Amino acid sequence: MKSPIEGLRKEFENRVKLGAMSMLAVNDNMGFNELKALLEVTDGNLSSHLHGLEKAGFIRVSKTFAGRKPQTTYAMTSKGREAFESHLAALEALIRQLK
Amino acid sequence: MKSPIEGLRKEFENRVKLGAMSMLAVNDNMGFNELKALLEVTDGNLSSHLHGLEKAGFIRVSKTFAGRKPQTTYAMTSKGREAFESHLAALEALIRQLK
Repeated sequence: MKSPIEGLRKEFENRVKLGAMSMLAVNDNMGFNELKALLEVTDGNLSSHLHGLEKAGFIRVSKTFAGRKPQTTYAMTSKGREAFESHLAALEALIRQLK
Repeated sequence: MKSPIEGLRKEFENRVKLGAMSMLAVNDNMGFNELKALLEVTDGNLSSHLHGLEKAGFIRVSKTFAGRKPQTTYAMTSKGREAFESHLAALEALIRQLK
């Protein structure tokens, strides 16, 4: 019997990371406050998890200006998409084993 | 838009906890070595996560003897089943949002 957790990635265990990646999977890029509002988490919590995802190369951070206001947006990298999709496939396989 | 991580439970974030609960969801009870072999984890790693699940009231530990050999087995509690099923439902909802 195959291990039910084979293929699950430690980097996506945390719910905030899982939520951020799932948002960025279906949105080309998102701002910090957009992610924060949707995930209902604190600034500190979100920025530490986004930093972790960036360091792992799974998301890319862009700093731009909206008029004179600085704006930070996040987007999934192809490396991130590949890793996240394999994690989701492993989650789906685990859930299927329980049906 | 509902938060994609609503309903996900911190107690089941960890892959070993997730794997142990999914094994105990489909097996009335399982021995330590059985869980260890299937999850492919170390003794220390497994026992710390099983202890966490026991403390949360999600699994029950039984100490019996097979002949003269002490045997530790684990089973899911009804509280554990309820919490785990709601976690799985939230995971399925998150994955569905991505399709």
